[in-house]
Formats: sequence, C-alpha cells, structure tokens
Amino acid sequence: MSLLLIAPDRDMSDWEQALQKSDPNLDIEIWPDVEDPKRVQFAVCWNHPKNVLNQYPNLQAVSSLGAGVDHLLADEELPESTDICRVVSPSLVQQMKEYVLAAVLNIQRNIVHYIHQNEQGRWQPHNHQLSGEVKVGIMGLGELGRPVAQQLANIGYHVSGWSRSTKDVENITTYAGTEEFETFLHNTQMLVCLLPLTQETEGVLNLETFKALNNPAWIINVGRGEHLIDEDLIYALDSDILQGAWLDVFSEEPLPDKHAFWNRPNIIITPHIASITQPSGSADQIVENYKRALSGMELNYKVDRNKGY
Amino acid sequence: MSLLLIAPDRDMSDWEQALQKSDPNLDIEIWPDVEDPKRVQFAVCWNHPKNVLNQYPNLQAVSSLGAGVDHLLADEELPESTDICRVVSPSLVQQMKEYVLAAVLNIQRNIVHYIHQNEQGRWQPHNHQLSGEVKVGIMGLGELGRPVAQQLANIGYHVSGWSRSTKDVENITTYAGTEEFETFLHNTQMLVCLLPLTQETEGVLNLETFKALNNPAWIINVGRGEHLIDEDLIYALDSDILQGAWLDVFSEEPLPDKHAFWNRPNIIITPHIASITQPSGSADQIVENYKRALSGMELNYKVDRNKGY
Ligand SMILES: NC(=O)c1ccc[n+]([C@@H]2O[C@H](COP(=O)([O-])OP(=O)(O)OC[C@H]3O[C@@H](n4cnc5c(N)ncnc54)[C@H](OP(=O)(O)O)[C@@H]3O)[C@@H](O)[C@H]2O)c1
Ligand SMILES: NC(=O)c1ccc[n+]([C@@H]2O[C@H](COP(=O)([O-])OP(=O)(O)OC[C@H]3O[C@@H](n4cnc5c(N)ncnc54)[C@H](OP(=O)(O)O)[C@@H]3O)[C@@H](O)[C@H]2O)c1
Repeated sequence: MSLLLIAPDRDMSDWEQALQKSDPNLDIEIWPDVEDPKRVQFAVCWNHPKNVLNQYPNLQAVSSLGAGVDHLLADEELPESTDICRVVSPSLVQQMKEYVLAAVLNIQRNIVHYIHQNEQGRWQPHNHQLSGEVKVGIMGLGELGRPVAQQLANIGYHVSGWSRSTKDVENITTYAGTEEFETFLHNTQMLVCLLPLTQETEGVLNLETFKALNNPAWIINVGRGEHLIDEDLIYALDSDILQGAWLDVFSEEPLPDKHAFWNRPNIIITPHIASITQPSGSADQIVENYKRALSGMELNYKVDRNKGY
Repeated sequence: MSLLLIAPDRDMSDWEQALQKSDPNLDIEIWPDVEDPKRVQFAVCWNHPKNVLNQYPNLQAVSSLGAGVDHLLADEELPESTDICRVVSPSLVQQMKEYVLAAVLNIQRNIVHYIHQNEQGRWQPHNHQLSGEVKVGIMGLGELGRPVAQQLANIGYHVSGWSRSTKDVENITTYAGTEEFETFLHNTQMLVCLLPLTQETEGVLNLETFKALNNPAWIINVGRGEHLIDEDLIYALDSDILQGAWLDVFSEEPLPDKHAFWNRPNIIITPHIASITQPSGSADQIVENYKRALSGMELNYKVDRNKGY
C-alpha cells in the first residue's frame, strides 16, 4: 500500500518530509520511482504526464496538489471509478485573499502607473477613487471566491459575486446562473475570475463579457488561462473596452516568449503564483484523504465529476 | 468675518463649493483675492507662501488642509497666539490604510519584481512569505498609524507599533519612547513611518535605524521627506542593509529630475498621493472648527505647539 506523488516539474522532497511528519508510518513513493504498481492506492498529482494514471490497478483515489482539478479531469485515462479530491488549506485561501487584494489595490491606486513613471523619472499624480466607489465582481463563490469577496467587502469595496447556485454572503450582492450574469457584469468595474475550468466556464472571459462590464473596466484572472480568449483581450484593450488585465494564469505556461501579452503596460503578468499549496499546511489534509480512501470513507473536498469541479 | 483658503498650488474651487454646501452663509475668500485683511478670522492652508499669515490682524486660528502641520509650524511669522488645527477625516484614514496595505502586499508578494519581469518578457516565479511570517513595524500610532496597524493585523501580518507615550492596541505589540526604539526595530522587517515631522523625528530614518532592523528589511515612508536621510538610504541599499524603499514623500517635492532615487528598481516612488484630503469628506470638519474659533471654543484636532504635532 503506497501513496504516490506525481509532479514532474516540482521538487517533491519537501512534500515527502511533510507527509512523513504527518504520519511516520506512511509508505510514500515519488514518480517515476515506483517499486510495484499494484501497491499504489492513492496518487497526489500536479501536471502529471499522460499514460501514467492507468498504470496502477489498485488506485482508489487521486488528489490534486492544489485547488484546481481540471488537469485531472482532462485525463481520459483516469478510470471513471477513481475518486478525485483536492486540497484547500487555510494557507491556500490566505494567499489568494492577499493576491487578489494586492491586484485590486494596485489598480485602484494606480501603482503600476507610478512604477512605470519611476523608470521615466516622471512625477505625475493621478486621481484615485476611494474603495467605496469601486465595484468589484467575483466570478465563483467557492472555497476561494467567498473569502476573497468577504475580505474585499471588509476593506471597503463594493463587492458582488456570481456563482452557479444561489448564495447568501454577508455584505455582498450575489447573482447566480446564466440569467443573472449580465446584470452582474453591468455592476462590475473590476472582474475577478475565480471559477474552476469546466466545459461551461471555458472562454467565459470573452469580448461579449468585456463589453457588458461597467466600462472602462479591468479583469483579474486567477482561475485558469483557458477562461480567457487571448485575442479578445488584446482587441478589448486596443479599443478601450478594457483598461487593463491582471493575469496569473495562461493557456500555455510558462507564457511563451513571443506572446502578445508580454511588455504591455496595461497587462500585468505573474507566473502562476497567486496561491501555492504549501507542504506544511496541506500534508495533514492529504494524509486524511489517503486514509479515508483506504477505508472506503467519503473523501473531503471530493470532486463532482458530473459538474466538473 | 471671512474664512480664507491659501493653497497656491491647488485649484480650490471644489473646496469653495464643498464649504459653501456645508454652510451656505459662509463668507469664503481664496488667497490672494482678499477684500479686507481685517475680516479674515480663520485660514485653511496648504503650502502657503511666506509673509502671508502675518497680514491678518484678527486671525484666530489656522487649519492645515491635511493631517500634517509641519508646514504651519515652520512658519515663524505665524503669531504664537494663533491656534493651529488639522483635518483628519474618515476618507483620509481610509486612503492611508489602503496605501500602506498596498505597499506591504506589493513587497510581500514581489509584485514590483513581476512588473519589471513583464518588460523583459521573463517568466520567473519567486518565493513569497505568508502574511503571518512578515513583521511590520509602524512608527507613529496616531490618528493614521493606529488604524493602519490594526488593518494590517486583521489581514494577518505580525504588527508592532512605536509611539512617544505608551499605547495599548489590540493584536499589536507596542513600544514607546527612545528606550524601546531599538527593540522595536529588531522586530521589524517592513518599517512604516507615519510620524509627524518634528525636531525629534527629523532624520529618524537614518543608517543606524536601518542597521537595527531585522535585515534585509524594507522601509515605507508616508510621513514626511525630512524623516529620511537620502544618502543613508542609497548607502543602505547599495550595501544590502535594506532590500528596498517605498516612498511617497520627499524633502523636495516634486522630486527633482536628477535625484538619485529615480529609476532604481528597489525604490518605489509615488508623488505624495498616499492620502489626499477630499473636499466632500472634510468640509464639515473645517466649518465646525471655523465656528469654534469664532466663539472661542477649544478646536477639534488642535495641535500642541510645544510637542510640535
Ligand atoms: N492562480 C492560482 O494560483 C490558483 C490557485 C488555486 C486555485 N485556482 C483556481 O481557482 C479555482 C476556484 O477554486 P475554488 O476552490 O474556489 O473552487 P470551488 O470551491 O469548487 O468553487 C467554484 C465556484 O465556481 C462556481 N461555478 C462553477 N461553475 C460555474 C458556472 N458554470 N457558472 C457560475 N458559477 C460557477 C461554483 O458555483 P456553486 O457554488 O454554485 O457550485 C463555485 O461558487 C480553481 O478551480 C482553480 O482553477 C487558481
Ligand atoms: N503621505 C501622505 O499623503 C500623508 C497624508 C496624511 C498625513 N501624513 C503624515 O502622517 C503624519 C501622522 O499623521 P497622524 O494624523 O497619524 O498624526 P498624529 O495623530 O499626531 O499621531 C502622531 C503619532 O506619532 C507619535 N510620535 C510623535 N512624535 C514622536 C516621537 N518623537 N517618538 C515616537 N513617537 C512619536 C505620536 O505619539 P503619541 O501617540 O505618544 O503622541 C503619535 O502616535 C502627519 O504628521 C503627516 O506628516 C502623510
């Protein structure tokens, strides 16, 4: 019986240590060093290669190393019977709250402008709005979106949120479903995407969406790169439909060298660092789900494969 | 009886409107258009010229247009008998909370690095600390410093504060006086200056202070330019005693073209915009103090000329 870590582009020694600390009796293997495929019962994955997850006949469940599971659901070789779960630790939530707050504050207070002015030796004040005048809209009110929205409201922003099912969140105006999407957009000047990537949400950040915003607006994408239609963003920026975009995720990562997004003052690029799953804060959660899987209990943060998140 | 606005480098028409709205019976004059100097009983000043405040024989009190009064106290022509007060509105406090939070988040989350990397087309993640691991120290726990410190603590930072007299602030470790200054600095990785400019605080951001910080540290100066010894900052940055500086105020404003602070990636310059007194949010406060001055009542936010703030 073993727990297998599959994350080819990460150094997993910290993870091994943290998991071992959480339970010294665990049998941990790090892909591709697997002694006996039949012993693998639980896998923890991030950007796992194709043709791997079908190698383990006794695999009970797979956990994402982060909050997103699109990389797992996209793997057609993963048997239908295998349960999927994910990690949502307090530190993941905290980092996302900080990141989105940083983006919103930077935009509101023209910080990027000022950083560019420094390079030109230019002293030029710009007007700024007060937080109570700024309308932020959060797409996705899940484990991350809800606390992000609440923190922004506590700071003083005018916050609304949009989800699939109807929600009730203190100090936030909520909208649900495709019927209320347009009204939500009309009331949004800074649009934050914290949706999971599914068939329904792919390409949701498109020209029609941008036009419906309270323009000139900003978008902040911390969901997945595939939520955004890249060409629509460039068009919207060039035609002043959008003022700018703050992006942490991209269809291709690392963002390719010649990509149109680089070196535009109104596109801010961060290299997928909004919220990083930390071994120390998440090991217990993974060990707990490993044990649940072995004993046939319902997993925590289990993914609904029909909904796709 | 008139209220005189003296702010040569600002367009004061918004202020005139807001004050008139607060009390339609007010007699407002805008310097230099003064009908009869004897009628002026109250002046509201921002960067007022020399040899002006001694022109009004019946001047009862002078209000700063902002929270700082160093520009008024530095005017030796202002009679000893004239009371001085200042404006501290909720919007002034809110803007300062936002600005300092933006600076702290930017530093913690390496945002300035990423903005520079965009220009180079470089995808390079950097490690970041969690907010609970970052020690922020606030110099000055007054009308601005206290709420700034509290908000940072609410967000999750490890916050301490330093003031002249002993203070008790929830979730914050407080230090007072010169005796505890060094201990305060030892426990600080991001040093925020929110002191008033006085004889005692001038030059407080010097090499000795920088060396005592929990290095490599950052400083954030939103007090006054004269709190900082410019050469000491350059030396400390060049010798890796400090990692960077985030500055909103300067000994000479606008910062001169050839100043050594321009175009250094580890100095962030904003043009004195951290917190701008807004007419709508502050007119009532000024009108209230005008009436108090006329009827000989104690002013709100009155300055202690001995302490210098
Ligand atoms: N950039 C980064 O570093 C980073 C880090 C972590 C996560 N993420 C991304 O953030 C995403 C969200 O994470 P989470 O943990 O908050 O997810 P979650 O708990 O599953 O919440 C998803 C939210 O999106 C809503 N939603 C899903 N499909 C929708 C649709 N078609 N229309 C309207 N609303 C829809 C859901 O509505 P209901 O509540 O009605 O179900 C829910 O509120 C992840 O999937 C991942 O892609 C990015
Ligand atoms: N950049 C901007 O846009 C901007 C905008 C507004 C204000 N400001 C600056 O911010 C400053 C602070 O404003 P405020 O309204 O918070 O002032 P305040 O209410 O007068 O508070 C001043 C604080 O500094 C402390 N202090 C004064 N002298 C000290 C000394 N020698 N040693 C230790 N602590 C000392 C005081 O200690 P006690 O509590 O013990 O008296 C008090 O806590 C203003 O004076 C102004 O220069 C800048």
